[in-house]
Amino acid sequence: MAFTFTILGSSSALPTSERFMAAHVLNVHERFFLIDCGEGTQMQLRRFKIKLGKLNHIFISHIHGDHVFGLFGLISTFNLLDRENDLHIYGPSELEPIIYGCLRDFYVHVNFELIFHRLDCTKSVRIYEDDKVKINTIPLKHRIPTCGFLFREQPGLPNLKKDMIEKYNIPISKREGIKEGDSFTLETGDIVPNHELVIPAPEPKTFAYCSDTVYHEGILTQIKNADLLYHEATYGRDLEKLAKETMHSTAGDAAELARKATVKKLVIGHFSARYKDLTPLLEEARSVFKNTFVAEDGKTFVV
Amino acid sequence: MAFTFTILGSSSALPTSERFMAAHVLNVHERFFLIDCGEGTQMQLRRFKIKLGKLNHIFISHIHGDHVFGLFGLISTFNLLDRENDLHIYGPSELEPIIYGCLRDFYVHVNFELIFHRLDCTKSVRIYEDDKVKINTIPLKHRIPTCGFLFREQPGLPNLKKDMIEKYNIPISKREGIKEGDSFTLETGDIVPNHELVIPAPEPKTFAYCSDTVYHEGILTQIKNADLLYHEATYGRDLEKLAKETMHSTAGDAAELARKATVKKLVIGHFSARYKDLTPLLEEARSVFKNTFVAEDGKTFVV
Repeated sequence: MAFTFTILGSSSALPTSERFMAAHVLNVHERFFLIDCGEGTQMQLRRFKIKLGKLNHIFISHIHGDHVFGLFGLISTFNLLDRENDLHIYGPSELEPIIYGCLRDFYVHVNFELIFHRLDCTKSVRIYEDDKVKINTIPLKHRIPTCGFLFREQPGLPNLKKDMIEKYNIPISKREGIKEGDSFTLETGDIVPNHELVIPAPEPKTFAYCSDTVYHEGILTQIKNADLLYHEATYGRDLEKLAKETMHSTAGDAAELARKATVKKLVIGHFSARYKDLTPLLEEARSVFKNTFVAEDGKTFVV
Repeated sequence: MAFTFTILGSSSALPTSERFMAAHVLNVHERFFLIDCGEGTQMQLRRFKIKLGKLNHIFISHIHGDHVFGLFGLISTFNLLDRENDLHIYGPSELEPIIYGCLRDFYVHVNFELIFHRLDCTKSVRIYEDDKVKINTIPLKHRIPTCGFLFREQPGLPNLKKDMIEKYNIPISKREGIKEGDSFTLETGDIVPNHELVIPAPEPKTFAYCSDTVYHEGILTQIKNADLLYHEATYGRDLEKLAKETMHSTAGDAAELARKATVKKLVIGHFSARYKDLTPLLEEARSVFKNTFVAEDGKTFVV
């Protein structure tokens, strides 16, 4: 079962020849979520062979152009491709009229259902849940209202122990019930308790997305022990002052949060275009939190 | 002196893995004009190494997203790069409030002068003139108000005949005047008439940009004898009916206009994403007008 995070754009406000702007796809067991949608997102989706028709949910962290300017073209493309599925967009309230205004101004009459979910970025709220995953917002601290997103797998069912199935010759009709907690009654009338028949399900995994934000320990409780944390690192410590002024983070800030939250893996991204070589940022982060990786357009990380 | 036309995007409404959406750069003697601005234009400018700072004039043919969605990101990028030059945007009137609305919605406070020139697409109007080039609109026929653009070089000065300069030992101080029409008086008092001293300037060249439009002979007078005609060819004759319905042209339509206008060279572009291989469209056009070429992202044509 896949639980992966793919970078479509790893740059901040300005693109470079290597890096497009913020956009990411999270695959939770073949359910695909687009997180942020910078200019060129639809081209990156094609380039990295992610089927547009699989995207039904788009999450926008905040209304800065480098996180949104790909949305209008993407909606327009969905429309031209005769999309039929509903499209759910989650973003700060102010985004709703912008989207509808843009569709009107550019003569785009969507032939599918577009459902906008207004986010209140001041507190953590459950915004989505299905049988695979539940999603909460993470209030971030940026120049304008901004949300991160916390994706937590739903607990799976335990797995059956193969040797026990064989030993007791358990019929297929009984197996689902056992996964859900049944014990098994033998022909002798003896009962085999459930815990002898199953291996507990793996712990549900968690992915946290935090962009854009200044260093903010308020998120620690939410991202605690996450399996994968994506955190912006627009700057290196050489530009710590600028990071604070613009309410962005340094690579060191991201790593410090990863360390304090004892996450398992950190991916840093949203890099300023001034950094051609990202090695210094990676080194800066790794000196604080070893298991750090650098976002790169097209790269996929396992949660 | 360069007079060239570079394709940034050769696709129509949907991008493909090879083709971005409508955007083009015309270089008239190192003055650079951006014509249409589909999503990803700023990335293509970087990719094809065209300096953003050189662009001071942007021409938008009509308000369909595939010709405009790159504009917001580009303006935002100009701003982040601390642009100081004025930026002139020429487009249908309705575009002006859209641009200002977008800048407001996305918190972009431009620190340079943005001057919008409202175009009336119902008639041909001179919209720009400097010492290198003059530009007129070409009224096109599409589903919404749409303008093409006609770029005509300003007439150059004649060139001096080298052998005459040597023969009469004409001093440098007199040469500019001769280029501008003076005759030259010898020490003997004899006068050498101007036409003996100069080679006439080359004919000013003309480039015509026509996208999007249904087949429309109304443009023939304006594009007559153009050195280079760019004409949209969204479809091939296999989809002639669809072309008419959507008010687009086929490759054959574009070629027929090129033939009737006796232009020197035709470039077709704005291709539907359904055509992976463009050979059939090129062949269709060449069977009518031989000197046809296919637009391709990054390709430059000499006018």
